Amino acid sequence: MVKIVGIGGSLRPDSYSQRALRLVAQRIEALGAEVEVLDLRDMNLPFCDGGDDYSAYPDVARLQNTVRAADGLILSTPEYHGSVSGVLKNALDLMGFEELSGKVAGLISVLGGQSNSNALNDLRTIMRWVHAWVIPEQVAIGQAWKAFDSEGNLVDEGLSKRLDQFAQSLVENTAKLRQAA
Amino acid sequence: MVKIVGIGGSLRPDSYSQRALRLVAQRIEALGAEVEVLDLRDMNLPFCDGGDDYSAYPDVARLQNTVRAADGLILSTPEYHGSVSGVLKNALDLMGFEELSGKVAGLISVLGGQSNSNALNDLRTIMRWVHAWVIPEQVAIGQAWKAFDSEGNLVDEGLSKRLDQFAQSLVENTAKLRQAA
Amino acid sequence: MVKIVGIGGSLRPDSYSQRALRLVAQRIEALGAEVEVLDLRDMNLPFCDGGDDYSAYPDVARLQNTVRAADGLILSTPEYHGSVSGVLKNALDLMGFEELSGKVAGLISVLGGQSNSNALNDLRTIMRWVHAWVIPEQVAIGQAWKAFDSEGNLVDEGLSKRLDQFAQSLVENTAKLRQAA
Amino acid sequence: MVKIVGIGGSLRPDSYSQRALRLVAQRIEALGAEVEVLDLRDMNLPFCDGGDDYSAYPDVARLQNTVRAADGLILSTPEYHGSVSGVLKNALDLMGFEELSGKVAGLISVLGGQSNSNALNDLRTIMRWVHAWVIPEQVAIGQAWKAFDSEGNLVDEGLSKRLDQFAQSLVENTAKLRQAA
Repeated sequence: MVKIVGIGGSLRPDSYSQRALRLVAQRIEALGAEVEVLDLRDMNLPFCDGGDDYSAYPDVARLQNTVRAADGLILSTPEYHGSVSGVLKNALDLMGFEELSGKVAGLISVLGGQSNSNALNDLRTIMRWVHAWVIPEQVAIGQAWKAFDSEGNLVDEGLSKRLDQFAQSLVENTAKLRQAA
Repeated sequence: MVKIVGIGGSLRPDSYSQRALRLVAQRIEALGAEVEVLDLRDMNLPFCDGGDDYSAYPDVARLQNTVRAADGLILSTPEYHGSVSGVLKNALDLMGFEELSGKVAGLISVLGGQSNSNALNDLRTIMRWVHAWVIPEQVAIGQAWKAFDSEGNLVDEGLSKRLDQFAQSLVENTAKLRQAA
Repeated sequence: MVKIVGIGGSLRPDSYSQRALRLVAQRIEALGAEVEVLDLRDMNLPFCDGGDDYSAYPDVARLQNTVRAADGLILSTPEYHGSVSGVLKNALDLMGFEELSGKVAGLISVLGGQSNSNALNDLRTIMRWVHAWVIPEQVAIGQAWKAFDSEGNLVDEGLSKRLDQFAQSLVENTAKLRQAA
Repeated sequence: MVKIVGIGGSLRPDSYSQRALRLVAQRIEALGAEVEVLDLRDMNLPFCDGGDDYSAYPDVARLQNTVRAADGLILSTPEYHGSVSGVLKNALDLMGFEELSGKVAGLISVLGGQSNSNALNDLRTIMRWVHAWVIPEQVAIGQAWKAFDSEGNLVDEGLSKRLDQFAQSLVENTAKLRQAA
């Protein structure tokens, strides 16, 4: 059984990227995988200072240990200024090869305006840099303020179906890639 | 006289990207421009939460006001995981069009390993997103640990000359682009 | 008076990117600049072989000479596979610093599906590589098959207005950047 | 047994990217995979015109059929102007989802100057666009003119070892990803 960890890149109380992450997490769980969502709003993480002593912030070790033990990752970010949020990038900066190398990641972005894939492109390059795999399926949710209904589900069936395919691909391909050679 | 603000993307005490930023700032001053360096290590900035009330952190207003009043910017970042540091991206996330649009930016990155332009590419796209100009000259300093001598100058004369051209281009072209149409 | 050269990256007989290019060329001419459009459909260009003898193809010299004499460029490309068309990239490969360095470029992309800025991002990095300037304004035209009316004008007024701003910025800023220091 | 097709993006008679491709092809064959190299210098391909009738160029069908029948791909490109060669991009433009979707690709770039990963980044985004996988391992060979010895082998043992890991990863992970779910 594959273990997937989801990380959301927004600290906004009513964040859409966190909602999208929960939707995917549910679907991944329904496919029989184990899922844990790390909500950065509930964690006390410092800015990365380029060093390796974060003992004053136990949540750094929690982040690192949880990701290290995972097979796959969901990274869900708001697109800020045409890229990944500084919040999510900083969380990734607090980890390294030990946590991220060889993991299988799926990427989601959420935008206030028109859909775009800049944040997804940057995240894809970043994850490769730490030798992670990134699945080809990715989801950019544009005009997020009207993308979700009152129950937190996606209004657009096409998008919802793409989230299904995303979840399916992440679980299946994490299983394939993480098996012994 | 053009006003340039420099922002360094590292919180490391002995940061090379901050050193590179100081070198450029000196050269820009010598060219007759006004320069102010905002050292993020001395500022108390929060993580961007997607909102706009940061009154609990006066340094956010200081960052915003200083950049708003500037004509040009130097952004100097360590390359973490093949991209801009989360620290610098977060500082940019705390600003928007009001501060950044129409400004002229020059980009510097510093790497522990082999030189690369990933962080510079990402920053270029990010700055365009907020409708800033980015000068074609850019400097990536690889293997930073051996790039500086004991007095903080660059060992490689080619790199040092490129910093000169960078400073020259930033000052000249900021003046050109910021004049009335 | 600034000289602008437009290059379209599509060989399709009824190309939308060529239409968009013509629209911009008209607006740029109306602003008092000189415009020449190089239609790659009417030129006989070879694939770039990494060498410098293209004497068997006089259109290579025509491309090089026309661009060398220009102050600014409009590059209009269909987005193929999330990037610039091979046709346009090859035309750029047939030139180098001598033709492209210091020029001021504006970028347009046209897509069959949803709007995206991948081709524009790649072109921005490519143009910087040859030390050209790229204006912050850029236009991506999604679902091109329904973007133009029967007279070849843009249906969406917002897009049309963005083309106006694009033309204005290209002419004004080319004039600023190309003046003597 | 996995089938790998290699495509080189240079038409230069003594191309280094083609040499690098041959080196990898040998290693992949030694690992028990089937390899076919499509040398674009020996094929008569037209520029992509956005249409789908290339019956006048039988090599288009040969390219398409060979890639369609493959499990994995090696794409080896010279870095021209900080991106993939127009020649290789055009060859990819002549194919689509039918040929490329679901394939597993490994990427190599060769540069005249200092190593960089721009062409690799662009290719990674392009291949994702057509729903291919790209392995995390990638190789950029800088200063190619001094990277190979007289027998066409890489002088730098570190680089040579990275090509080994690249070949190993491509074969192993193509096998994993192409198995039935």
